[in-house]
Amino acid sequence: MKKHNFNAGPSVLPQYTLEETAKAIFDYAGTGMSLLEVSHRGKEFEATMSETVQMFKELLNIPENYSVLFLGGGASLQFCMVPYNLMNKKAAYLVTGEWATKAHKEAKLFGEAVEVASSKDKNFSYIPKNYVIPQDAEYFHITTNNTIYGTEIRYDMDSPIPLIADMSSDILSRPVDISKYVMIYGGAQKNFAPAGVTFVIIRNDMINKVSRQIPTMLNYETHIKNNSMFNTPPCFAIFAGLQTLKWLKNLGGVAEMEKINLKKANLLYDAIDNSKIFVGTTAKEDRSIMNVCFVMKEQYKPLEEEFSKFASSKGMVGIKGHRSVGGFRASLYNALPLESVQALVDCMNEFEKMKA
Amino acid sequence: MKKHNFNAGPSVLPQYTLEETAKAIFDYAGTGMSLLEVSHRGKEFEATMSETVQMFKELLNIPENYSVLFLGGGASLQFCMVPYNLMNKKAAYLVTGEWATKAHKEAKLFGEAVEVASSKDKNFSYIPKNYVIPQDAEYFHITTNNTIYGTEIRYDMDSPIPLIADMSSDILSRPVDISKYVMIYGGAQKNFAPAGVTFVIIRNDMINKVSRQIPTMLNYETHIKNNSMFNTPPCFAIFAGLQTLKWLKNLGGVAEMEKINLKKANLLYDAIDNSKIFVGTTAKEDRSIMNVCFVMKEQYKPLEEEFSKFASSKGMVGIKGHRSVGGFRASLYNALPLESVQALVDCMNEFEKMKA
Repeated sequence: MKKHNFNAGPSVLPQYTLEETAKAIFDYAGTGMSLLEVSHRGKEFEATMSETVQMFKELLNIPENYSVLFLGGGASLQFCMVPYNLMNKKAAYLVTGEWATKAHKEAKLFGEAVEVASSKDKNFSYIPKNYVIPQDAEYFHITTNNTIYGTEIRYDMDSPIPLIADMSSDILSRPVDISKYVMIYGGAQKNFAPAGVTFVIIRNDMINKVSRQIPTMLNYETHIKNNSMFNTPPCFAIFAGLQTLKWLKNLGGVAEMEKINLKKANLLYDAIDNSKIFVGTTAKEDRSIMNVCFVMKEQYKPLEEEFSKFASSKGMVGIKGHRSVGGFRASLYNALPLESVQALVDCMNEFEKMKA
Repeated sequence: MKKHNFNAGPSVLPQYTLEETAKAIFDYAGTGMSLLEVSHRGKEFEATMSETVQMFKELLNIPENYSVLFLGGGASLQFCMVPYNLMNKKAAYLVTGEWATKAHKEAKLFGEAVEVASSKDKNFSYIPKNYVIPQDAEYFHITTNNTIYGTEIRYDMDSPIPLIADMSSDILSRPVDISKYVMIYGGAQKNFAPAGVTFVIIRNDMINKVSRQIPTMLNYETHIKNNSMFNTPPCFAIFAGLQTLKWLKNLGGVAEMEKINLKKANLLYDAIDNSKIFVGTTAKEDRSIMNVCFVMKEQYKPLEEEFSKFASSKGMVGIKGHRSVGGFRASLYNALPLESVQALVDCMNEFEKMKA
């Protein structure tokens, strides 16, 4: 049976990425050796790293004065690296979900980490508006897509102070005006690569901003100066990421990708909005096109478990909602085909016909 | 032509590891989905993580009161995590090479990092002896194998204070008395897995040892409490590591592995010692069985480039010495077959017959 992979992350990747990485496990770049066995200092991997950086820059139209880094440790490590490198006394955080909360928590170790606004009052089901960003903070940190709650800041805001975004779960899903940000980072395991690599897009002047001493591996300067090769990088995940970028470029780039993503998201949201038994959990204007959260209406709630099993029997994988929201969550990352969304919608309609 | 992979890291892995990981890219644990696409919170990956920890513990005979962690960021990140977590005021370092120097440097950010002894005076060609470990230091840090210089501390020393070892390049190459150490760590990309995962063996009481606040991701307590799943782990590299452990167990475990490693190393060292043109670069009693460094004798030095090309034409890969030593380095990690060492020795003998 065909599986439809709605996992929230690690999650579906293009078939092209799977095939090319599997091939490279046996013969990488014509070396007759495995991608897993070659030196990161060899000319083949140097070329892979450089091509990955270049294609990342090309697809996201990243200006010349920014570096693209591929590091280990996960986006969670960035939660402390950001204030370690960029916060002397005060930073501002928009708290829109679990990951934003974690990022904010780490910043408190380094100075005054102001919560500019939070949507915790309504279980993070919306993006706060009309907040004031303190002019004396050194940066403003946002989480553009809230994987667990299904909300998204899907535009590039104007910030009076340097803007930093965690885009773990929506990078490469739409064109981004990089120049509005001083830094964008994220884990790879949604729209880019398998788990194990973190991308960092950082404006080159964002070094030497603090007076504290920074451990070498936590200092962005180290990685900018060494093109992410200060120590052995996660070679396999980077190579896999490059294949995804090639797939994306071939498909028409991020602008084309956004059109497809909107089509997928609209298909599912329309089904939810027209349903007698399902209902969305987030404010409509803040809906994520990557993670669609929905539950059953109050009178149908006892059927959630049954729908889970029904959907599973039809090949749907990973649609159980996070425990903080309950119900269902379908993650519609770049590599998820429209047919999978259609299959889920069909499944919802079929279930509804039986029950409502 | 058959390639003989003497890369210093990333380096040769068992064929079994390559085959099983390539298979899992298409169908992981019978899920019908890729290893690269499944949730780390799913029961399949939970089982992989747990089996990897268990087999690591079994093969190295790790006592019950130790945890085994698999983290991102590389051993270089551990250079700061060790003092961050374990050094209040004073720590002692044995400086035996480039990586030991880097570890020592990071510790200086956290307090008094005493250099107990160093072999820098002779380009790290030996392991210092008869040094005094300060009793009031909080731990003593050693690098058991010096990949670049080809020296190794191939026994488990008695230390009057807690002993911490970077075993990046010799873990799993011999039985280790884990109880002599409070912590052992290392990058995976030599004897264990592809680049992208770091193993940490840590005694469970090594938490809450310092008064400073530790960022969440840098705190060993976080990872011990969450079984390395606080954030998304490098799933692929961990799965690949498990395959290597299975291969090693099937081969007879680390005691059997050590016998094979000694046979390989002796074969090459004997060839060097009996050679008219080649000479080893390290003190004989400190020779590494993982990385064998040798150069040409003074009068033959101009032939080094020619030998490089000759060896390359015979399928030898990665035998160029590190720039700090020059000449040649053959890394004989666990997965390198005896036949490859024999091929290198044959190649050296053939060249010598032509030239000497």
